[in-house]
Amino acid sequence: MVMLALILSPAKAQDPASFVNPFIGTSNFGATFPGPIVPWGMVSVVPYNVTPHEGNEYSNTDSWCSNPYVYNNSLMTGFSHVNLSGVGCPDLGSIILMPTTGELEVDFNKYGTPLSEEVARPGYYSAFLDRYAIKAEATATTRTGLSRYTFPEGQSNILLNLGHGLTNESGAFMKMVSDSEVEGYKLMGTFCYNPDAVVPVYFVVKFSKPAKKHGYWKKQPRLPGARHQWSSTSGKFKIYEKYFRELAGEQIGGWFTFDTEKGETIQAKVGISYVSIENARENLNAEQSGFDFEGTAQKARDSWNKQLSKIEVEGGTKADKTKFYTALYHLLIHPNILQDVNGEYPAMESSEILKAEKGNRHTVFSLWDTYRNVHPFLTLVYPKQQTDMLRSMVEMYKESGWLPKWELYSRETHVMNGDPALIVLADSYLRGLKDFDIETAYEGMMKSATSPGSVNFLRPDNDFYMENHYIPFRDSFDNSVSQALEFYVADYSLAQLAKAMGKKDDYKMLYERSLGYKKYFDPEYDLLRPVEEDGSFMPGFDPMQGENFEPVHGFHEGNSWQYSFSVPHDVKGLTKLMGGKKRFVQQLEKTFRDSLYDMGNEPDMGYPYLFNYVKGEEWRSQRTVRDCVDRYFHTGPGGLPGNDDTGTMSAWLMYSMMGFYPITPGDPMYTLSSPVFDKVTIHLDDEYFANDRIVIETENNSADNIYIQKTEMGGKPLRKFFISHEELIREGGLKFYLGDEPAK
Amino acid sequence: MVMLALILSPAKAQDPASFVNPFIGTSNFGATFPGPIVPWGMVSVVPYNVTPHEGNEYSNTDSWCSNPYVYNNSLMTGFSHVNLSGVGCPDLGSIILMPTTGELEVDFNKYGTPLSEEVARPGYYSAFLDRYAIKAEATATTRTGLSRYTFPEGQSNILLNLGHGLTNESGAFMKMVSDSEVEGYKLMGTFCYNPDAVVPVYFVVKFSKPAKKHGYWKKQPRLPGARHQWSSTSGKFKIYEKYFRELAGEQIGGWFTFDTEKGETIQAKVGISYVSIENARENLNAEQSGFDFEGTAQKARDSWNKQLSKIEVEGGTKADKTKFYTALYHLLIHPNILQDVNGEYPAMESSEILKAEKGNRHTVFSLWDTYRNVHPFLTLVYPKQQTDMLRSMVEMYKESGWLPKWELYSRETHVMNGDPALIVLADSYLRGLKDFDIETAYEGMMKSATSPGSVNFLRPDNDFYMENHYIPFRDSFDNSVSQALEFYVADYSLAQLAKAMGKKDDYKMLYERSLGYKKYFDPEYDLLRPVEEDGSFMPGFDPMQGENFEPVHGFHEGNSWQYSFSVPHDVKGLTKLMGGKKRFVQQLEKTFRDSLYDMGNEPDMGYPYLFNYVKGEEWRSQRTVRDCVDRYFHTGPGGLPGNDDTGTMSAWLMYSMMGFYPITPGDPMYTLSSPVFDKVTIHLDDEYFANDRIVIETENNSADNIYIQKTEMGGKPLRKFFISHEELIREGGLKFYLGDEPAK
Repeated sequence: MVMLALILSPAKAQDPASFVNPFIGTSNFGATFPGPIVPWGMVSVVPYNVTPHEGNEYSNTDSWCSNPYVYNNSLMTGFSHVNLSGVGCPDLGSIILMPTTGELEVDFNKYGTPLSEEVARPGYYSAFLDRYAIKAEATATTRTGLSRYTFPEGQSNILLNLGHGLTNESGAFMKMVSDSEVEGYKLMGTFCYNPDAVVPVYFVVKFSKPAKKHGYWKKQPRLPGARHQWSSTSGKFKIYEKYFRELAGEQIGGWFTFDTEKGETIQAKVGISYVSIENARENLNAEQSGFDFEGTAQKARDSWNKQLSKIEVEGGTKADKTKFYTALYHLLIHPNILQDVNGEYPAMESSEILKAEKGNRHTVFSLWDTYRNVHPFLTLVYPKQQTDMLRSMVEMYKESGWLPKWELYSRETHVMNGDPALIVLADSYLRGLKDFDIETAYEGMMKSATSPGSVNFLRPDNDFYMENHYIPFRDSFDNSVSQALEFYVADYSLAQLAKAMGKKDDYKMLYERSLGYKKYFDPEYDLLRPVEEDGSFMPGFDPMQGENFEPVHGFHEGNSWQYSFSVPHDVKGLTKLMGGKKRFVQQLEKTFRDSLYDMGNEPDMGYPYLFNYVKGEEWRSQRTVRDCVDRYFHTGPGGLPGNDDTGTMSAWLMYSMMGFYPITPGDPMYTLSSPVFDKVTIHLDDEYFANDRIVIETENNSADNIYIQKTEMGGKPLRKFFISHEELIREGGLKFYLGDEPAK
Repeated sequence: MVMLALILSPAKAQDPASFVNPFIGTSNFGATFPGPIVPWGMVSVVPYNVTPHEGNEYSNTDSWCSNPYVYNNSLMTGFSHVNLSGVGCPDLGSIILMPTTGELEVDFNKYGTPLSEEVARPGYYSAFLDRYAIKAEATATTRTGLSRYTFPEGQSNILLNLGHGLTNESGAFMKMVSDSEVEGYKLMGTFCYNPDAVVPVYFVVKFSKPAKKHGYWKKQPRLPGARHQWSSTSGKFKIYEKYFRELAGEQIGGWFTFDTEKGETIQAKVGISYVSIENARENLNAEQSGFDFEGTAQKARDSWNKQLSKIEVEGGTKADKTKFYTALYHLLIHPNILQDVNGEYPAMESSEILKAEKGNRHTVFSLWDTYRNVHPFLTLVYPKQQTDMLRSMVEMYKESGWLPKWELYSRETHVMNGDPALIVLADSYLRGLKDFDIETAYEGMMKSATSPGSVNFLRPDNDFYMENHYIPFRDSFDNSVSQALEFYVADYSLAQLAKAMGKKDDYKMLYERSLGYKKYFDPEYDLLRPVEEDGSFMPGFDPMQGENFEPVHGFHEGNSWQYSFSVPHDVKGLTKLMGGKKRFVQQLEKTFRDSLYDMGNEPDMGYPYLFNYVKGEEWRSQRTVRDCVDRYFHTGPGGLPGNDDTGTMSAWLMYSMMGFYPITPGDPMYTLSSPVFDKVTIHLDDEYFANDRIVIETENNSADNIYIQKTEMGGKPLRKFFISHEELIREGGLKFYLGDEPAK
């Protein structure tokens, strides 16, 4: 009861968790979820409400719904225990527990219930299941979930549905261990169309009370021909009441029925592993020896407060704090822990099981998204975890022969473009994180940068690129320009690392490559335009083609406008191509004025900051950044401008609210804008950095005062809008003076 | 090469296997199979050719096809490793290996091939797979199968298909152990419509050569709605080339491809267990440490010769010997070994794994069939194995609380009528097999005989029967008379045992029950007729109703004619009811004359012998028995008169060819007819019996001389047509003198 009181207690000092609203991003395709998870947790317990059904506006079959929960929907069909946050393709959303009452019904198309009284806080979720009059609560540890169901009087049921979920892979196994325990696994994967990305997830489920009756079900395939008549269960849900040995199939599940008194609670805990059932059980025993709901929920909240407290903000509205801490919360979900408590994890692209020797093995690397700001953010604020992630990436190279691109539970999904691992490794190293095997990393980076396309897992189109420094337009709707732009940023980053490591030839070769973007520049439009193999521009170019995810020649999920400024490593060169600063500003302003800017996608994320490259025009960045912070981000369920992209949108928001942004991947510096808060204190880990904090103070801050009048660093005036990562840390922060008009 | 020569060598002394033609019974619904098996083997390797396809006259979907192989069919789709012989419902017929060549094709509807050059001998099968130019050979040990494929040059494939087979249950699991080994299990069961009879079968498959490439496949379920478009494998066979961890699903399999030279052989061995994958591997290692095809095949044949040699026959035609030894071969398949080499087996009706302490645990007890003659036959000729079977039945009672009725791999299928375990246990005991726990057995027998219907697993209709000694007609097409007739035989048998054990009250009660059949006797027809609860006859009786498996009131799979003489324990009483011997003979003769007799079903199996109950009319039995032996049994694939019923038809044939038949279950005696052979020597096990052999000699035997002129036993004239089991053994045999006219 004391514990419960704590959970329910209002915000207090050092309780940044109280500002987190996990419903943010659960609408408008944000793809986040409200269910409990701990920082970098493997397990979350998420109300699953995307089953096609009346009342469910967004279903996993009728619209592109990549997440297990959508705020707009009304009918839920259980709690899924493995989930992805903020991604754009459906997967996981499985190992689903569903409490019901009354006669047994095992078809998820029939047992759904509306929810009411939903509450979501870091490490805690609860709701009332209207149809069944059940109160359901959930919490989690790193590798386990815990649910508590308060039942009415009568027959109560808990269903474990393995034939239900977001993944497009199929097949599951389960085995009853006793009348209160079941184990098994389910195959998941095929994330973003890749049939090779197959991942088995293992589980053990234990109940706090033995079931009165239990068994399996299976939707039997419809038998062909006359066999259909001979089998009473052909094409139907078959209920197994007497069979308790191994079950396998597709639409399978386990049911447990109880006689409950009014208000009786039954708890269900779930251990997960990506290695084996044995490890799932070991994880469960290690992280939840008993059934202690309040204690577990409190620990989950404590673990959030510990991480969220790395940054303290003062000033701003409650909404600002909610936006900020919820963003931080979302950023700390992926790349999550992969290894079990005993250190074991599945090796990259193989069937081997390995043991982590140093630090944690992480997974779910959405690198095309996260190289831009998530990893720089983690590098600064969570250097220990970021170091573990860097090590994880190098280990993936050692295991599979290639660095990751979009890694999902030790499977390369090949989603999106480019070669983003290079950027993360180089950028982190250059920002000072050096406690990983840089030699091996460099070997892996150079391998993808220089291997011929025919043997290049990451850059199949490397041959022409290596020779000509661009990728030609070859097929209708190819991504040639988008792909090349990613290679430039990657090669630029690797060039910077090569320079730092004294590898001058590599530096020269790679840096030259990174300037190949100029080939795409068409002065007729002052935009980038696909180029043919012979060097001529693709005919029939329409810079507007590609809005709203329609297919477009040369660009991926966007049009030329959304890519043409994406050369963060050579903004000055681009400016020169455009004929100078005036034209550059004109084109950039047009992007925003004509609604060509897409806050929801990554390629143009940095655009608002690009005015900083033109002296005297920095106020435009301040205005645009603040406009984006206000326009695209709010505290409602639709408060993210689309997929959070495993924290990338959230990282942009936080940087932009703090007043600095890592504009150039591979270049350890920041560019500035006006902070939203009066004071931001970032507690640094002095094991990694030469200071224990950065403090960003803002004078004269208000809703109207969004323009920087002057800036100080280390007590001295700062006469620039770019600072290095090293000096920011060394000097311990910044001080901004704001006003309601652009400074002269 | 020496070994091969032996396999191919023609018949020789002590090589009764050379007379066995495993193709007998593979047409005309005999439901036997030509693939190799050893006596009472758990594993057989059977060409599976009942996939619906042009050229397959009998398929497992378009007609009632209960067996994996039909001689008439032309297209095979692999070799199944667990199979049932001579049963009337489809099940098992699974764990299917298929060799192919060329490009990988995993859909069994597409990869079938015609067979040619089929050869089947005890312990050996071979055929040429025309489409692929592969020679396939197979042999078996008790718990393992071994195949040898001789491939042409090029890409060769071996497929392990777990989504294919006879069973109506679904779901399988598999895991690649290496490039030459795979393990897993498949769910089977629902035999004869019983959805509760679910059995997991575990396997390990090893190849003699590592595969060049290997992987899984799965027929992915078709995804609903828009998800179908987002998944390239939705509704299709998905080939897994990079995933080697656990797979589960329904239509799943494993593929292994090889580069083969012309004439290169690859062997595949399969270990089976009904306990676990570990046990399947232990079985495989114990029974086949290497890959020795010739040695394994020779051992299989030796094991057959050892068992077949228990009976030596002399005289008769080659066809007679073929019929006889093939019948003996078929009789020695079920009830087969269940336990693994380490003694473990799945307990009856539970999830427990137990260990056999004494003798072998047997399974597949089709007791309604086999109580009539298979078990009396085993009792006489294979008393050790029959003792193991008796013990197995008693253990089933101890494990589940009930004796078996139609037991399939430790699951009660509830197929057919009555309470047949009582008959087998009592009959065997009274014939002298006493080395089992008769006290516990008696307890189990009395439990089903006397428990109220509501709690009676075997006799749910016991209440009315216990009080009124008959089962009333209640529902259209019920089996009331058939069911009651079975209870009479069971209760009569138990009565005889009770008498032998000095339990006089039980004897009296049970014996009185067994005479309840008189209630059904309708003098208007001189036949049995369903009776209502009030004791009146069912109106609208048609004694011809029920031919050809059409539904019939009161009788199961037959009409009144085929049941009305089925009171083997009181033929004299029945004769009296009919008004005397003349009328009895008249009615019995009409059965045969008007083709009302069904040799293919059990209830009237004993009819040909019933003339022996009328003095002076015994010649009619001699004529009728010989007529049935000649008319319904021959050496072609259609040489059985329907389902072999796990050896029941075969046992009838052998007894009838030897000249004696166990006409009354529970009464340890035989009735006589004229032998086909000049001399039959049955080698008895003198650990069980007071003699080491029975010799049946026949003088003046010929195709026309089918009538017994006189009989001698122990050198003295025998002036009767009934002898006791005990005196037959004590006297060591019989001598018949035959002639072409009935004796006066």
